[in-house]
Amino acid sequence: MHELIESHIAPFLPKYPVDVPLSSFDDSAVVDGIVFTTDAHTVKPLFFPGGDIGSLAVCGSINDVAVMGAKPLAIASALVLEEGLEIDVLERVVKSMGKYSKMTNVPIVTGDTKVVEKGAVEGMIITTSAIGRRSDHLDHNLEVAEKYRKVSSSWLTDDNLKEGDAIIVSGTLGDHGIALLSFREGYGFESEVQSDIAPLNELVERILEVGGAVSMKDPTRGGLANTLNEWASKSLVGIEVEERKIPISGPVRNACELLGLDPLSIGNEGKLVVAIVPQKAEEVLAAMRELRIGERAEIVGKVTKGAGRVVLRTEVGGRRILDPPVGDPVPRIC
Amino acid sequence: MHELIESHIAPFLPKYPVDVPLSSFDDSAVVDGIVFTTDAHTVKPLFFPGGDIGSLAVCGSINDVAVMGAKPLAIASALVLEEGLEIDVLERVVKSMGKYSKMTNVPIVTGDTKVVEKGAVEGMIITTSAIGRRSDHLDHNLEVAEKYRKVSSSWLTDDNLKEGDAIIVSGTLGDHGIALLSFREGYGFESEVQSDIAPLNELVERILEVGGAVSMKDPTRGGLANTLNEWASKSLVGIEVEERKIPISGPVRNACELLGLDPLSIGNEGKLVVAIVPQKAEEVLAAMRELRIGERAEIVGKVTKGAGRVVLRTEVGGRRILDPPVGDPVPRIC
Repeated sequence: MHELIESHIAPFLPKYPVDVPLSSFDDSAVVDGIVFTTDAHTVKPLFFPGGDIGSLAVCGSINDVAVMGAKPLAIASALVLEEGLEIDVLERVVKSMGKYSKMTNVPIVTGDTKVVEKGAVEGMIITTSAIGRRSDHLDHNLEVAEKYRKVSSSWLTDDNLKEGDAIIVSGTLGDHGIALLSFREGYGFESEVQSDIAPLNELVERILEVGGAVSMKDPTRGGLANTLNEWASKSLVGIEVEERKIPISGPVRNACELLGLDPLSIGNEGKLVVAIVPQKAEEVLAAMRELRIGERAEIVGKVTKGAGRVVLRTEVGGRRILDPPVGDPVPRIC
Repeated sequence: MHELIESHIAPFLPKYPVDVPLSSFDDSAVVDGIVFTTDAHTVKPLFFPGGDIGSLAVCGSINDVAVMGAKPLAIASALVLEEGLEIDVLERVVKSMGKYSKMTNVPIVTGDTKVVEKGAVEGMIITTSAIGRRSDHLDHNLEVAEKYRKVSSSWLTDDNLKEGDAIIVSGTLGDHGIALLSFREGYGFESEVQSDIAPLNELVERILEVGGAVSMKDPTRGGLANTLNEWASKSLVGIEVEERKIPISGPVRNACELLGLDPLSIGNEGKLVVAIVPQKAEEVLAAMRELRIGERAEIVGKVTKGAGRVVLRTEVGGRRILDPPVGDPVPRIC
C-alpha cells in the first residue's frame, strides 16, 4: 500500500508548502491551521461484534484529527449505497454515526449520498472526512516537553521522536481485527473478543493537559508494528518494545496463536500509542489510567539509536526485528 | 434521493448550531468559518470525452466550496480501488487530479487508499472533500447587494433569494450528462459533445469582485431544474426562466430530442448559476463573458412571487411548471 501511494499516486500530485503536507503521510494534514483528514471505510460485514461501519467511520476520523494534537470540529460523510440495500440497514448505520457524533460532540455537518446499481459495491462504502483545530492544550503540552529536550514540530507529527522518549500503549491490542475476522469467518472467538472502536479525543486532551507528549498515533491498519515502524523511519530513530509489557487479552492471544497471526500486526480502532519525554511518562500513564478507555495503559518501550529499526524484546528474552506487516494480514477490517 | 436523506439519514444525526448546517442541504457546510464539503464519485466509465473521474472529483469539490463565496484551500482524496485495476489506469486518474490541483492552486493534502477484492466495486470510487475560507471579496460583494436590498445570510446560501433578483447561467447546459451517456451507450453524439468539467473558482472570484450576487450554485445532478427548485423552495420564492435565453448547444439539443431527455434536468460539471440583485446583473454578465469559461453566459430569468414554484416560459410562448427531475435521468454521471 505504501509503495502504491509513494510510487503511483504522490509523484503526480503537485507539492505545496502547507503546515503538514501529503508527503509526510501523517494521520492528518494541516493547512492554514486547519487539521484535515479523510478515510474510506470498506469493512465487511457492515455489522460486527462491538461496532459497525458507522461507528468505525466516525471514530476513525475523529481519532485521526485528535492524534495530531487537535480538537475535532466537524465531520463530512459520503455514502455509496448499493441499490436494494434495506432502509433498515441504512438507518441502523446512520443511527450509529449519530450516536458517536453526539457522544463526542462532533457534528456531522455535510454529506453526499450516491446509489449505485446492485453489484457495483458490496452493500455500502462510507468515506468520512474531518476537520479540527489546534487543541487548547497543545502549546502547554509541547512546552512541558521542551523543558527536557528540543521539539522541532509544532504538531504531534510522526517525525517528532528522539532517543530516550518513552512509548505508551493505551490498552489491549488486536481486538478489532480479531473480532471482525472471527465473526466474518465463523471462527467462534467473537463471543469473547469485541471490536475496540472508540473515540480517542477525550484521552488525547487528558494527555495534553498533563503534557510532554511529542507524537501520538492510533494503530489501525497494520497495528502496532506498522505504527512503530512509521515513527522509526520518519524520525530516523530506533524503537525497542518489550513483548511482556504489551497488553493483549487472553482470547486475542489464543486466537492469534491458533490462526498464526501476530497481534502486533492486527488493526485497532480505539487505541492510542504515545511517544513522550521519559520524565513525564509515569505521570501521563497515571492520568491515562484514570479514564476507562486508558485503564489498561502500559509503558511498553523506548526510543533508541538506530535509524528506522524496531526491535521487539521477546518474553523469552530474545530480540527480533519487528518489521511492518507485508500486505494486509486481515483485509477489509476498516 | 432528497427523500432518502430527509427521512432516513438527517433525522438520526444530532443537530448543532453551526454557520451553515447539514439541515440546510447547501453545497457546503460552514463551521467556525471553515467551508467544508464532500462528494463520492461513482462515474462510469472512468474516462469519457472531456474528462475522467479524477478531474470530476477535484473540480466538483472545488466548485462546491467556491459557490458558497469561498476560496478553496485544500482537498482530501479517498480512493477505493478494485484489486487488479491496472496501475496505468490509476496513474492516469491521479495525473488528472494533479493537473487540476495545479491549475487551480488547490493542493491535495491528504488521502486514503483502500484496495478491495475484484467485484467489490466497479473499477474505482473517489471521494473528495474540500475545505475553504471566506473569499476576500465576499464582504464587498454582499455590501454591493445591500445597497439595493437587505441580505440576510452572510454566505451565498440557497435561502438568500428575493423577488426581483436576476438569474444568470454561465454557459451551455447538458454537455456533461449527454457526453457521458452517449459515450457509455454508444449513441454517437460524443464526437460533438464533450463534458464541461471545469473549476469555477476563478469565475466566482470575478463575480464577487464586481459584487451584488446573493447566491450561486453549480447545477450538477438534476441540472438547472433541480438548482432552481432548490432555490425556490429554500428561499420561498418563485422563479421564472425563459427557455429561449437558456444556452444549449445544437448537438445537446438534438441528442436530448432524440433520447427524450430534458436538457434542463441533465447534470453539468463546469457551469455556474448566479442569483443577483437586478441592478448589477448586466455588469456581472459582462464581467463573466470576459472569461473564457463565461463567454456564453446569459441572464435567463428572474425571481418572482410564488413560494417554491419554478416556471419555464417556453420558446413558443407558453408557460409550464419546471419540476425537479424525479430520480436520476442519467445515472452514474458523477
